[in-house]
Amino acid sequence: MPQLAYVNGRILPHADASLHVEDRGTQFGDAVYEVCAVMNGRILDWQPHLVRLRRNLGELGISLAIADGPLSLQARRLIAANGHSEAIIYMQVSRGTARRDHGFPGATPSNLVMTVRRFDFAQRLRQLDTGITVITQRDNRWGRVDIKTTGLLPNVLAKQAAKDAGAFEAWLVAGDTVREGSSTNAWIVKDGRIITHPTGTAILPGIARDSLITLARAAQLVVDERPFTLAEALSADEAFLTSTTAPILPVVRIDGAPVGNGRTGPVVRRLADLVWAEVARQTGWRA
Amino acid sequence: MPQLAYVNGRILPHADASLHVEDRGTQFGDAVYEVCAVMNGRILDWQPHLVRLRRNLGELGISLAIADGPLSLQARRLIAANGHSEAIIYMQVSRGTARRDHGFPGATPSNLVMTVRRFDFAQRLRQLDTGITVITQRDNRWGRVDIKTTGLLPNVLAKQAAKDAGAFEAWLVAGDTVREGSSTNAWIVKDGRIITHPTGTAILPGIARDSLITLARAAQLVVDERPFTLAEALSADEAFLTSTTAPILPVVRIDGAPVGNGRTGPVVRRLADLVWAEVARQTGWRA
Repeated sequence: MPQLAYVNGRILPHADASLHVEDRGTQFGDAVYEVCAVMNGRILDWQPHLVRLRRNLGELGISLAIADGPLSLQARRLIAANGHSEAIIYMQVSRGTARRDHGFPGATPSNLVMTVRRFDFAQRLRQLDTGITVITQRDNRWGRVDIKTTGLLPNVLAKQAAKDAGAFEAWLVAGDTVREGSSTNAWIVKDGRIITHPTGTAILPGIARDSLITLARAAQLVVDERPFTLAEALSADEAFLTSTTAPILPVVRIDGAPVGNGRTGPVVRRLADLVWAEVARQTGWRA
Repeated sequence: MPQLAYVNGRILPHADASLHVEDRGTQFGDAVYEVCAVMNGRILDWQPHLVRLRRNLGELGISLAIADGPLSLQARRLIAANGHSEAIIYMQVSRGTARRDHGFPGATPSNLVMTVRRFDFAQRLRQLDTGITVITQRDNRWGRVDIKTTGLLPNVLAKQAAKDAGAFEAWLVAGDTVREGSSTNAWIVKDGRIITHPTGTAILPGIARDSLITLARAAQLVVDERPFTLAEALSADEAFLTSTTAPILPVVRIDGAPVGNGRTGPVVRRLADLVWAEVARQTGWRA
């Protein structure tokens, strides 16, 4: 089956999917995006992703002409056309194509792009046993990282530093506070309490993060949304991360030092059961 | 004459100039750029722009296969093909097209784009008499704004705030320090001394900024490269800004308050004479 993409109303071969060089996303990072998990052919948490997309467009004053209904239809059509039952769908909306000037252009339609690619979610279940490692990097991003924009170069550089160090992720630290990972939210567990940075302007409000909080609280687990320090993380009982492409993964080492006993802990296992049960409930997917 | 652009070795109609949607610049802001002034058909300060481009590529580990000689030739060819004697040329280099993942892709050629458009530099001479106005905005950009990347959304939002306020530019203020404008460097004059923020990681080292320092010092004027506060700016004798597209413009109001007597001052006039004489020396251009 050919790989297909969506650009401004048309589904076309992925290789032909392009934007004009004066796309505002390309020249200014003037664009927002979403990534959703597709399991068993169904999109996980579609509604929250849509709500966040609309909120981010609103924050930047970018208008997207297509309504939620038709957008959902196009997303599902693209997923079906690509024929992957396990995949991720990427959606990007820029302020449109316009002669290069910093200020907003006049009436210009936004550019909407969607791509789909196969993704192996079963590997995330296997990684529950091994766990993953993180390094830390100074958070030098801009002041509104709550908006999911394509201005991701600091994240790219942090992720590459992790890759160079043989780690899965880089946790971004401001002062002595751990904010989040370069593309994931960061969590620790101490004395049975689950701790993660509060939303606001300093982290991206992850959909997987929000979902996990709801699931944990429904299961009578205690979640504290509060800043935590790197020292707290290093002396935590357990640590983990969440994201769309890694719904939950145990962090067993931070900067080379073991977290707790250096193995996946009981709270992460319990949370993983809840997370994957929710995936099965929404999509019917099981490894 | 048709408008033409350059994309990865080809000169083609501007309307057809595109990049794949998985260009790293488009999806991550993983790209650097330069804008140069073309006057009398000649590129101003071409060599310093090339040096800065190479330095920025080096900072991000992006390799650009084309050498300076052929790149210069292609830039000149594109300018000639567009047939404007007064223009700006925009050059962008991204890390290339690759399947979307934050970390650097393996061996992928970078994407090089160049566009040219007519620009009216004579208006900048007329603006010497009227001056322009600026507002201030909090600097919430990332920690490496010395690298000229396409991650410009904070600059876009600041410029739009200026536009909304009827001002020409927004000066970005961190704490009480004025760093620079959203797309220009910021300067004040006090007791005959010319003051501008030092280079480092907090400002973009402007080519026009560097050129002006050289010209001013050669003319026995005193230039202090040091941080200055908003209060200093508000009580300065004169203020001005510099950039490629605005080689020197007097700032006569900041947040509505007049600078000095609210008119173009003698030091800015003197500097403007030096700047435009240098333009004439390099390119032969005269208004």
